Amino acid sequence: MSDGKTGLQLRSLLKKSGELELSLANIPTPEPGPDEVVVRVEGAPINPSDLGLLIGPADMSSAKASGTKESPVVTAKVPEAAMKAMAARLDESMPVGNEGAGVVIKTGSSDAAKALMGKTVATIGGAMYAQYRCLKVNECLPLPDGTTAAEGASCFVNPLTALGMTETMRREGHKALVHTAAASNLGQMLNKICLKDGIGLVNIVRSKEQADILHKIGAKHVVDSTAPTFMDDLTNALVETGATIAFDAIGGGKLAGQILTCMEIAANKTAKVYSRYGSSVHKQVYVYGSLDPRPMELNRAFGMAWGIGGWLLLPFLMKIGQADGAKLRARVIAELKTTFASHYTQVVSLQEALQLSNIAIYGKRATGEKFLINPNKG
Amino acid sequence: MSDGKTGLQLRSLLKKSGELELSLANIPTPEPGPDEVVVRVEGAPINPSDLGLLIGPADMSSAKASGTKESPVVTAKVPEAAMKAMAARLDESMPVGNEGAGVVIKTGSSDAAKALMGKTVATIGGAMYAQYRCLKVNECLPLPDGTTAAEGASCFVNPLTALGMTETMRREGHKALVHTAAASNLGQMLNKICLKDGIGLVNIVRSKEQADILHKIGAKHVVDSTAPTFMDDLTNALVETGATIAFDAIGGGKLAGQILTCMEIAANKTAKVYSRYGSSVHKQVYVYGSLDPRPMELNRAFGMAWGIGGWLLLPFLMKIGQADGAKLRARVIAELKTTFASHYTQVVSLQEALQLSNIAIYGKRATGEKFLINPNKG
Repeated sequence: MSDGKTGLQLRSLLKKSGELELSLANIPTPEPGPDEVVVRVEGAPINPSDLGLLIGPADMSSAKASGTKESPVVTAKVPEAAMKAMAARLDESMPVGNEGAGVVIKTGSSDAAKALMGKTVATIGGAMYAQYRCLKVNECLPLPDGTTAAEGASCFVNPLTALGMTETMRREGHKALVHTAAASNLGQMLNKICLKDGIGLVNIVRSKEQADILHKIGAKHVVDSTAPTFMDDLTNALVETGATIAFDAIGGGKLAGQILTCMEIAANKTAKVYSRYGSSVHKQVYVYGSLDPRPMELNRAFGMAWGIGGWLLLPFLMKIGQADGAKLRARVIAELKTTFASHYTQVVSLQEALQLSNIAIYGKRATGEKFLINPNKG
Repeated sequence: MSDGKTGLQLRSLLKKSGELELSLANIPTPEPGPDEVVVRVEGAPINPSDLGLLIGPADMSSAKASGTKESPVVTAKVPEAAMKAMAARLDESMPVGNEGAGVVIKTGSSDAAKALMGKTVATIGGAMYAQYRCLKVNECLPLPDGTTAAEGASCFVNPLTALGMTETMRREGHKALVHTAAASNLGQMLNKICLKDGIGLVNIVRSKEQADILHKIGAKHVVDSTAPTFMDDLTNALVETGATIAFDAIGGGKLAGQILTCMEIAANKTAKVYSRYGSSVHKQVYVYGSLDPRPMELNRAFGMAWGIGGWLLLPFLMKIGQADGAKLRARVIAELKTTFASHYTQVVSLQEALQLSNIAIYGKRATGEKFLINPNKG
């Protein structure tokens, strides 16, 4: 382990030429200001939301490895069509890793900074795929004694996203919700929250294996979009729960429209009067991911009272404000080892994170595969 | 002209068998209650929003005429796939015609009702494709002296929809707007409103002829979605106007997504920092029509700050409340012969409205074709 004066940091560089380059930069660790601390990062998850910056629109089937074992370099081609949207990040070497946790090894001169010395803290400060990270005190969330960095590494993105979904549901006047790609780490958390809080949740999965994962943790409504009876199964679950809002990680294809169509059928099952514009019940789908990059297709067989839109954690947190956000964070910490426990299939070093064989696995965004980077592994 | 004791009423009946039947029913005119009046209807437009109930999903290429000249009957087949959404109206003979105007020929005993005797009034009371219509006093909007029923027949749906668009734009924090199928009667009204009120408006049309119509009335930004330079033209107009909300009458195909994509490109032209989630500017498309019945296709190349949803006049009016709605209606009446003047290409009787040759024209929902039914014509 180094002395912390310099450390490796994972970088993603998208060149004007259309080439993506992933590498490790050796950078000096900043001297902490009075209100700052240096964290030795020991856990940072690879979330789907990190892959957008890390890999972006690159075609990883074209990926090539070069460099050395200690300092690997990966290059890949970005399709011409995808370059237009990337203008703002071209030729800028960008650090990656939204969240993570580690141990404070050096502090600034303020009392608040000094109080964190030796503590294990979590953060959503970004640039966490790095051995050392200088952070402001108020960016650090101290974890309870007995919590490891690995246990606390994912305590923002997935937990707050799952809580953000049930909060959004309540704030927009819905009483139950639908979730797609529902067997994911996030989906499992959402099930635990809904079971605990007595919220109706319709889980949509894409295989029997995924359905089994959810049944095992007590999920009540699980429907398989690959089943021939999918539309009927979903409609029945919507009638039973009364769900009129959905959070969709898939994005592409027909699924979002199918959800709205089934919500409309469910709403009309109880309608007394014909309306040429369909039911007046507002039906909403929020898209928060893009597991299926194909275009979304909407046949609009769901009346006029509907909405589809993007949903992101940070704008949501900004909307609800500091005080309400703090309540959500406090709940995550209180239930970190139960409701909000994350499970990783592999823990890798920064170098291992750049092995093509590993990129091939985590780049697939497959349910059940979840990587944790420990930049100080070894 | 009859004595008003009975009158013809146009009916649309969708049978469980999958057959649509249009006919004229001869019905007794209700005796007006104390607070009611009987209106001899002299003008009722065929709006796109009426066609949904009148023709619905029927395949009018299969339409057959029967009955007599005085009492024509039209039948047509409804595709199997479309029947599911129609469950609530099956085997129910429904009157048609959202809005219209006519002369009060009989009143109830209240002073308010008596005051309307002989007046020309407009209404959005429904069932207006009829010779006589019994309405509550508060459903009648008396037209200024010198206004004909034909001039006042369309004073709700299009004028309030156009005003509803600029109102929604303001209330949701946008400063300029986009409109599709922009050379329609409604679109021309919207141009007059925006010119008068100093609002930036980007008109999207589908032909040079439609562009010419708009240029003639002074439209500043007109882009043709069939031009090879459409995406660039639209982006430039969005940069110039700052429009971040669109009202779309088309619905199907790629247009709504193209609008969002160009809004995102326009927003990023001024962005200083790269965000992996795209611009933080909220981009909104409201779909209020379905001129293109194909599925809507969204490639989601427009970041995460976006929304698409249905937009309807009546829920909008309910949302803004009585007082604000009354202000909009007062403006329509004040500018009925200028900003809100409607132009009809044909005035037809109820029987003529059921001629296959006429249905073939108004059923196309083509820009420039607008029918007015005068149930007491002749």
